[in-house]
Amino acid sequence: MPATNTNLETALRKIEMTGVPQVRKPALAFAGGLDSALCALLATKKYGAAEIVPILVNIGQGAAELAAAREKAAHLGLTLIVLDVQDEFSNIWLKKAIRANVDYNGYPCSTSLARQLISAVVAQKAIELGCDALMEGSTGKGNDQFRMHNVFALFAPGLPHLMPVRDFDLTRGEEAALCEHWGVPVTESLIGGDDTTMWCRSIASGGLDLDTIVPDDAWLWYTPPQFAPDEPETLTIRFEEGVPVAVNGQRLSLRELLPLLNELGGKHGIGKLDVWEDGIMDLKSRELYEAPAATIILRLHHDLEGLCLTKDELVFKKTVDQRWATLVYDGEWFHPLRADLDAFVAQTQGVVNGEYTITLYKGNIDIVKRESNSGLFAPEIRSITAESFNQQLSGSVARLRGLPYEVLAKRAARMRWSSVGAQRPAGQ
Amino acid sequence: MPATNTNLETALRKIEMTGVPQVRKPALAFAGGLDSALCALLATKKYGAAEIVPILVNIGQGAAELAAAREKAAHLGLTLIVLDVQDEFSNIWLKKAIRANVDYNGYPCSTSLARQLISAVVAQKAIELGCDALMEGSTGKGNDQFRMHNVFALFAPGLPHLMPVRDFDLTRGEEAALCEHWGVPVTESLIGGDDTTMWCRSIASGGLDLDTIVPDDAWLWYTPPQFAPDEPETLTIRFEEGVPVAVNGQRLSLRELLPLLNELGGKHGIGKLDVWEDGIMDLKSRELYEAPAATIILRLHHDLEGLCLTKDELVFKKTVDQRWATLVYDGEWFHPLRADLDAFVAQTQGVVNGEYTITLYKGNIDIVKRESNSGLFAPEIRSITAESFNQQLSGSVARLRGLPYEVLAKRAARMRWSSVGAQRPAGQ
Amino acid sequence: MPATNTNLETALRKIEMTGVPQVRKPALAFAGGLDSALCALLATKKYGAAEIVPILVNIGQGAAELAAAREKAAHLGLTLIVLDVQDEFSNIWLKKAIRANVDYNGYPCSTSLARQLISAVVAQKAIELGCDALMEGSTGKGNDQFRMHNVFALFAPGLPHLMPVRDFDLTRGEEAALCEHWGVPVTESLIGGDDTTMWCRSIASGGLDLDTIVPDDAWLWYTPPQFAPDEPETLTIRFEEGVPVAVNGQRLSLRELLPLLNELGGKHGIGKLDVWEDGIMDLKSRELYEAPAATIILRLHHDLEGLCLTKDELVFKKTVDQRWATLVYDGEWFHPLRADLDAFVAQTQGVVNGEYTITLYKGNIDIVKRESNSGLFAPEIRSITAESFNQQLSGSVARLRGLPYEVLAKRAARMRWSSVGAQRPAGQ
Amino acid sequence: MPATNTNLETALRKIEMTGVPQVRKPALAFAGGLDSALCALLATKKYGAAEIVPILVNIGQGAAELAAAREKAAHLGLTLIVLDVQDEFSNIWLKKAIRANVDYNGYPCSTSLARQLISAVVAQKAIELGCDALMEGSTGKGNDQFRMHNVFALFAPGLPHLMPVRDFDLTRGEEAALCEHWGVPVTESLIGGDDTTMWCRSIASGGLDLDTIVPDDAWLWYTPPQFAPDEPETLTIRFEEGVPVAVNGQRLSLRELLPLLNELGGKHGIGKLDVWEDGIMDLKSRELYEAPAATIILRLHHDLEGLCLTKDELVFKKTVDQRWATLVYDGEWFHPLRADLDAFVAQTQGVVNGEYTITLYKGNIDIVKRESNSGLFAPEIRSITAESFNQQLSGSVARLRGLPYEVLAKRAARMRWSSVGAQRPAGQ
Repeated sequence: MPATNTNLETALRKIEMTGVPQVRKPALAFAGGLDSALCALLATKKYGAAEIVPILVNIGQGAAELAAAREKAAHLGLTLIVLDVQDEFSNIWLKKAIRANVDYNGYPCSTSLARQLISAVVAQKAIELGCDALMEGSTGKGNDQFRMHNVFALFAPGLPHLMPVRDFDLTRGEEAALCEHWGVPVTESLIGGDDTTMWCRSIASGGLDLDTIVPDDAWLWYTPPQFAPDEPETLTIRFEEGVPVAVNGQRLSLRELLPLLNELGGKHGIGKLDVWEDGIMDLKSRELYEAPAATIILRLHHDLEGLCLTKDELVFKKTVDQRWATLVYDGEWFHPLRADLDAFVAQTQGVVNGEYTITLYKGNIDIVKRESNSGLFAPEIRSITAESFNQQLSGSVARLRGLPYEVLAKRAARMRWSSVGAQRPAGQ
Repeated sequence: MPATNTNLETALRKIEMTGVPQVRKPALAFAGGLDSALCALLATKKYGAAEIVPILVNIGQGAAELAAAREKAAHLGLTLIVLDVQDEFSNIWLKKAIRANVDYNGYPCSTSLARQLISAVVAQKAIELGCDALMEGSTGKGNDQFRMHNVFALFAPGLPHLMPVRDFDLTRGEEAALCEHWGVPVTESLIGGDDTTMWCRSIASGGLDLDTIVPDDAWLWYTPPQFAPDEPETLTIRFEEGVPVAVNGQRLSLRELLPLLNELGGKHGIGKLDVWEDGIMDLKSRELYEAPAATIILRLHHDLEGLCLTKDELVFKKTVDQRWATLVYDGEWFHPLRADLDAFVAQTQGVVNGEYTITLYKGNIDIVKRESNSGLFAPEIRSITAESFNQQLSGSVARLRGLPYEVLAKRAARMRWSSVGAQRPAGQ
Repeated sequence: MPATNTNLETALRKIEMTGVPQVRKPALAFAGGLDSALCALLATKKYGAAEIVPILVNIGQGAAELAAAREKAAHLGLTLIVLDVQDEFSNIWLKKAIRANVDYNGYPCSTSLARQLISAVVAQKAIELGCDALMEGSTGKGNDQFRMHNVFALFAPGLPHLMPVRDFDLTRGEEAALCEHWGVPVTESLIGGDDTTMWCRSIASGGLDLDTIVPDDAWLWYTPPQFAPDEPETLTIRFEEGVPVAVNGQRLSLRELLPLLNELGGKHGIGKLDVWEDGIMDLKSRELYEAPAATIILRLHHDLEGLCLTKDELVFKKTVDQRWATLVYDGEWFHPLRADLDAFVAQTQGVVNGEYTITLYKGNIDIVKRESNSGLFAPEIRSITAESFNQQLSGSVARLRGLPYEVLAKRAARMRWSSVGAQRPAGQ
Repeated sequence: MPATNTNLETALRKIEMTGVPQVRKPALAFAGGLDSALCALLATKKYGAAEIVPILVNIGQGAAELAAAREKAAHLGLTLIVLDVQDEFSNIWLKKAIRANVDYNGYPCSTSLARQLISAVVAQKAIELGCDALMEGSTGKGNDQFRMHNVFALFAPGLPHLMPVRDFDLTRGEEAALCEHWGVPVTESLIGGDDTTMWCRSIASGGLDLDTIVPDDAWLWYTPPQFAPDEPETLTIRFEEGVPVAVNGQRLSLRELLPLLNELGGKHGIGKLDVWEDGIMDLKSRELYEAPAATIILRLHHDLEGLCLTKDELVFKKTVDQRWATLVYDGEWFHPLRADLDAFVAQTQGVVNGEYTITLYKGNIDIVKRESNSGLFAPEIRSITAESFNQQLSGSVARLRGLPYEVLAKRAARMRWSSVGAQRPAGQ
């Protein structure tokens, strides 16, 4: 969708809307893209701001994106406040996400998490600096508006939220037209939003159709398997209490480990996700992500839980994990239920310890070796080659376990059901 | 574990046990392997059988295995009854499994399903032929004993179950020693059992340790990615009412389609499964499977549901599917709850229609194109490039959706909690 | 809250709002109360209607309420269309509700159900009669607006919804002031809405505070236990396929049976409900209901399921029932998931047959006798006074059932945990 | 079932069984009833014990039962070790049970809990005193055998479990015959077991038929409503962090509070339970309990949670609570999952604070007043009499909330489904 004249005319007409709230000093969650630029422009042009407080939160989007954001801010004449939350994001937020096997329809909830942390940080800074409004660039079509609203409402009660894309009902093409009209160049794709954190990167979010194909150079970390190395690469990853703590014997913080695995995994064709997402407003979107580190870590964490947790814990934790992901996706990180679920999850993870040896090869993760001193695998009891207990015991178990079937068979006979078996024939 | 002299001595001592039930004409679920052979031998030598009714059920284990079974039967002097249930297995049992996204810890429940159908068929045939006992080769360590017991109890109430491996508490080495002692050659691996159906094949089940590596020639369909073709292969698969019905435009029954996809998928490195399984007795085993067709079909079926079912249906169906797999794994196919769950599943599948174009390449399944006339993807409403509804509406939604946070913030203030946010600080 | 002058002034000011949609011939869901009257008045005064099509749906609200509605319509000069859906409501909607043990936080979802059926009937009639809008009296605070919206959107796509209480943001006091101002007398309580169906009656809904006490004459069927008869009354109720079909041996349709049990139960102090309700907008309200028939039927249906369904079915059906009630409460009767859940429920109910003898006495329902030919109670196996199976079998079961604890104990020893038991000590 | 001669002859024959394990010094979980007496007798007569260590655990069964147990021990020549665990039982075990709204098919899991604590205490004492076996009187028909087995296996690994009723496959009549034969009088009912703790009392457990009526004097606390006082009694109960801490303004420990409420509630006809129970072996039994204190506390705790927890927490906690009760009922108190679930529950309870004023009257508990400073009821926002937010906002919500119905309606039109609505017509 080009930034056509029609777009500009429509956009200019839309922003003539009356009843726009007037503020003095809004804090702006500044990311460096089209939406951020438009916010900065409209803050003064339409919302009456005398001063803008633009806050850039470093959530691991990488040096290139940060540099571009600084450049864009300079172009707009803004003095950026940069807050680095990479430690909090990785050590608290992503740690909980890994332990909960974060998975919303196959998506590891990267932006979902990041936007809520960003919102909390921005809201707190805004209050500290005496701002009288909160401003951000979410559209009225997506999920982020709801996520950020909840956090703003909690951390800065009473402060108005300015969201010009939604407030003026602008399309992405109209946003671009306005920016260019006011001399701010638009460099990014218009079909949808990209969003990068150290955990995952979204591609053209909200703009993909059923048959959209993204070009091979759309990826930051991911190499399509055809172009990946012809030799497998072997590495070891150690987990402690459910969290990866070392790669190839080298102890690393999550903040160090994630970029490493994004690089290694991406190189070998790991981590492309092409999924259906049911948004907060209950509308479907097709989404593309690249998440090499997350893919490797979540695969191994899940496997390690299979070794170290009891069957009953695994079954119930699936329900907890599913709820966790939905809650966080829906923008409810600060909801009391999230803390409740995390209490459950944390209690399970003390025994989730072990080391994996894996090979990466053209999109495949192969587990070569598993080690754990807190595992519950007991081949000395279970293996059919071991003489661990007298199998005759099992005969009694089968008999008593089958008693309900004897009761069911009696009922079937009593009811004279025509079909053999425990079930009422259909139609009777 | 070689069939040593020690094994033989121990085994001969064990089968001297007293109190063995004596029968006249047992029906034997005959598969052609070590366990089946031992059953046939002990039927006459220990259980007093005058006549054996060996029943071989064709569940898609393939021509080679069937031929070997016939040869083994001939060697044992048995006249096999062969019952072909491939149509029932694929059109009823596997159809339900696909619709329920069958997944028990990553395992598509092949043997779990097959043994129950086999048991039902054998029990019914046994009654038809006037047999006075049911005989099969399950061990007392695994899951099959429980699965077969339930079905036998329901379809042939009152008939005794003879399970010599369990009844005499034999190890796999002792079984082999006895067979060889009585002149029946043992050709298979002793570390665990292989089991093949048209749906999936298990490798060395029950005998794998944490670091067991199976040789490359252990696989029937699967080619390790390193040896797979260097060129991707593209194919189309059409689903109707949740079931695959055509490949590359050619209409196929499930019974025809599964071997085709096992071949195509296996060739391209698809379908190796290396999973943790929590057995019925709540003990863990590591299991290896190859299931190329199942892997492709379940991946696409799940994606297609993501396109055609509502969010609420998808969330709830996860719970139904999980229960379905557990129930079936546990040997409860004929339990009333299975029919209840299937009623739910069947009701959802009428709209699960569409065609996928995919490429297979060295272990990767890539979706190139999706088509469906019953999908719920509505980019004309959802896309951020479309002007489908006035985004200002969303502002009201965010506000009302956030009301509970205003209530929570008030409580936090009222309680004078020190931490910002909706949650009670830990320790208070 | 009296209909003060202030209320009138505010209300008159509010309805001066511009931008009110103008229609020709709206269909009005007419119930006969304050909200309905206001709709009729504003239809012509504000929405420009030339003709009103008022539709009164008989859902079992009783002769008195119907008569009052007719009188109110006459006073307003309206010619009522009366549609009797009591058969559909009882035989289809309530039948499903009973089978699903309908329970949303203790509330049997009466209005939730009724409003959706009313909406469907009104929307279909509106289309039949060529109406160009749908009108109803819901407030913007409650749940009914969302329930009716969904049904209208589905059955009359494109027709505008006129909801004056919400559109003009009126309080209940302002509504009353307007009605009286225009000569329509207001007779009902202003603290909240009452709503009666054959299934349940709500009292002052949406207007109760933490300590509100309703007067003894607020009840239609319910007699407080202190005033109930001093003699217990015994009756029998027969269920077939999960639905009550006879009382004291007399076969009755649900439509006949419900008023009878409302009378009998209410007389004996049964059926007062005082519950917390989490509304669709996630705000809490305290609600009072009287539902003698529903209380008796749901109590017995639940008990009968305990006798006739398997343990596994009962456990899973709890989850299904809970989802059913939430879905229906949320206004999603016509959502595909409701049909999916009902398919599950219907499959379970074929064996839910039996007869109960109960006594009613001052708020107590005592089960005196249970009879069922499809029950699964087998005292000949289970009773500790019967010699049904050799208890020694159970020793093996306990041993094998306890194997996971042996594995857990080994881990605890291996990890040198200080606490005895299977669990990791806190803090380790 | 009288202790007939036939019973005696059969019993004497049964205990002639060979292969009985021989021990030196078993610890006996001594409760004072028929089962305990038989254990003590057979310990020396059949299991070869030179010394018995009888341990009586005070779990709040009351002074009368304790005195009777002491008398029985004296008669048997045993020197009882009495361990009082009432504090641990109430402050740790029952506190968790209340917070989890303990409810297994309507049963508050009294014996389920008590037996596991008793087993842990007995096993630990046995090890301390150098015992070489653990002995208890469970039958092979009920649940307690499994509960005690798990705990014994964990706390005293390797020690044999002697359970003579099960080991010798004795009926209750045979037990009585043996006791009387050896001069120990039998005073209790033979139709089933009674079991009393401070939390609940079971009546004739395992021996009730469909139409068994227990005599009015079978109850310890409960007064049938007909005989309860004609005047209501009003009391207040205060909860802190989910646990009742005061009655009528007087602060009480749980251990003090429970007997008080058992007395007060029982006097007013509260607390009779007549439920279906699906046992661990999946067989149904009808069970009768009296639990006045538990009934009152669980009713109010549930209501208070409705006031203080968010909707999302309430919905998810139902699933957690259901799993908690099943786990504990199944004898898995010391399973890691119980600790995981409790971590969730504990996190929710910090805000469950408040005071209730209730009246008790002939089986009815009426809530007169609720007070809480941590509640989430906000009538200033929600009430339809308050002007808290502009209701016009809700129109947008209804519109966007209904978007999925617009998508569904489009699909229905596209598919040309004959039925109106979102659902595929049956049979299509």
